[in-house]
Amino acid sequence: MGLPPQVKVIKGSEKGKLVEATVEGRKKLKPNEVAMRITHSGVCGTDLHHLVHDLVLGHEGVGVVEAVGEQVTKFQLGDRVGFGYVRDGCGECDHCKAGDIYYCDMGARMYGVSDFDQGSFADYATWPDTNLHKIPDNIPSAVAPPFLCAGMTVFTPMRNYGIKPGHRVGIIGIGGLGHIAIQFAAKLGAEVVVFSGSENKRKEAMDLGAKEFWVTKDLADNKKPEKGLDYLLITATKHPDWATFFDLMNPFGDVILLGLTTEDLVIPYFPLMLREISIHGSLSSKPKQIDEMLAFASEHGVRPIVEEFPMTEEGAAQAIDKLVSGTIRYRGVLKA
Amino acid sequence: MGLPPQVKVIKGSEKGKLVEATVEGRKKLKPNEVAMRITHSGVCGTDLHHLVHDLVLGHEGVGVVEAVGEQVTKFQLGDRVGFGYVRDGCGECDHCKAGDIYYCDMGARMYGVSDFDQGSFADYATWPDTNLHKIPDNIPSAVAPPFLCAGMTVFTPMRNYGIKPGHRVGIIGIGGLGHIAIQFAAKLGAEVVVFSGSENKRKEAMDLGAKEFWVTKDLADNKKPEKGLDYLLITATKHPDWATFFDLMNPFGDVILLGLTTEDLVIPYFPLMLREISIHGSLSSKPKQIDEMLAFASEHGVRPIVEEFPMTEEGAAQAIDKLVSGTIRYRGVLKA
Repeated sequence: MGLPPQVKVIKGSEKGKLVEATVEGRKKLKPNEVAMRITHSGVCGTDLHHLVHDLVLGHEGVGVVEAVGEQVTKFQLGDRVGFGYVRDGCGECDHCKAGDIYYCDMGARMYGVSDFDQGSFADYATWPDTNLHKIPDNIPSAVAPPFLCAGMTVFTPMRNYGIKPGHRVGIIGIGGLGHIAIQFAAKLGAEVVVFSGSENKRKEAMDLGAKEFWVTKDLADNKKPEKGLDYLLITATKHPDWATFFDLMNPFGDVILLGLTTEDLVIPYFPLMLREISIHGSLSSKPKQIDEMLAFASEHGVRPIVEEFPMTEEGAAQAIDKLVSGTIRYRGVLKA
Repeated sequence: MGLPPQVKVIKGSEKGKLVEATVEGRKKLKPNEVAMRITHSGVCGTDLHHLVHDLVLGHEGVGVVEAVGEQVTKFQLGDRVGFGYVRDGCGECDHCKAGDIYYCDMGARMYGVSDFDQGSFADYATWPDTNLHKIPDNIPSAVAPPFLCAGMTVFTPMRNYGIKPGHRVGIIGIGGLGHIAIQFAAKLGAEVVVFSGSENKRKEAMDLGAKEFWVTKDLADNKKPEKGLDYLLITATKHPDWATFFDLMNPFGDVILLGLTTEDLVIPYFPLMLREISIHGSLSSKPKQIDEMLAFASEHGVRPIVEEFPMTEEGAAQAIDKLVSGTIRYRGVLKA
């Protein structure tokens, strides 16, 4: 299984149209690199920002190892592996040593920043072993990709900020992030309280593990959760009405921001202070946190719900259309 | 030393003018109450909100125990003691049991909310033993009052959010809160970086323990602290320019909000997310945290800098004028 001289990929282009292309394969693996045949790729909101860029799209890749560099010990030929958007750092700075490759002092190598010939909308990729992850045996490759971005995004702050059995955890939004967050929080033993824009997803939310479901616009003084929330995860990209939601929170509650938007946060000051609420921006994961997340998902049966499309220009375009229109349930996956 | 039938006090009044008055003394102590002759009272920004209310002003009281209720074991006649703005809770709810009396399910008894005949602008007060504190022997009563509100306000979040030796702690504002915060952070072993509106307080900030001093308006890309901040404490009541300050912070940095204002927080979203910053509203302290703060101040020589005024209508009015005009250095104390 030599390295392929040419790799079929799907790229962005100046006008935002997806294009199939062929890029040169890497001729030689560095000592710590792993080469894999990609079988599945997730489609994530972050990909939308790169549709106009001449780079290989995709940052939720799952595949099968076909070659390893001479120093690689963690992976073997045939292993199912996955990668996300952070590729590698210098390995020497304090951030890298702490596992926070994303904050590498030299600038992390990552999706949209470096290695434009590498992405998961492709039939092949090479990746350093630093931030590559074995997919647990009981997680099918077809549902694995969303863990590598959406999954870590929601799980890591649950650990960092200490969600534990008995905590009441509010989750705003049931989409690519939210439908996984509901599962993780429920499996961590929390009482999950879901807030959504309409009744449409009530049954799905409850099936995923929610204990309560509330339609946000119906919230009122006499119609709201009886017990306060210890945490509130914002998976939607539009900010909620903070005064309404702070009113639902317990003292010392934690708000965890997960969605990406350019809109300023406008926070009413006294409601924040009078309950001593904390607001956390959350984004990155250490490699070991991604491994822990995959192990937890494996053990507790957390599984993304995906819609599958072929890994072609047309298939990727369909997935992106459904993502943009908000009709995807809940995460697109391209199958090679 | 019986309970005095009448107590001299200073109250607010409808038009915002301070008035000396006499209120009836409490005739009998409840089993857990302590009666004290007040010797000193702090003057705090929060008092300004109550100038128009018909209540005894002041919530940083220090005095000498003159009588104790039959169940009081922690305090003896002659003890120097102090109280802040939270008086008592139901003692039965989960919040009270956790020491968070401020959040008592039945509504905390506190300054501005209940017991309008009790305050520290007075020559006598009775207080439950729940949230009354011994003043350590080496802290003079004349400088002790600010610990009971300003001191706990700045120290408790330093503990809650884990300021430790080697951390770089930014402090915005050098006033009643800030000048105590600089001392506590420095004594906790942090490198304290002070930001102020002008050069005026540079020497005082350095004398209090700051390692660096920056004039906020001079901050620029080529003129800013070389090393990032792990924490940023906002003791000013006007919000800083968040983008400027987020740019000075390390990944996973903590912003601790301490000043009170009605102005909304307007936070640029991406700068918050891209460094995964946390913003904490902070306000209350458990009784045991106040005791810990006093013990730490005693051991490490943290002392508020105060200006003394007589505890009279005129003295209190002078202190308040200097507080309002921002010329007080740094905390007013009324002496009985």
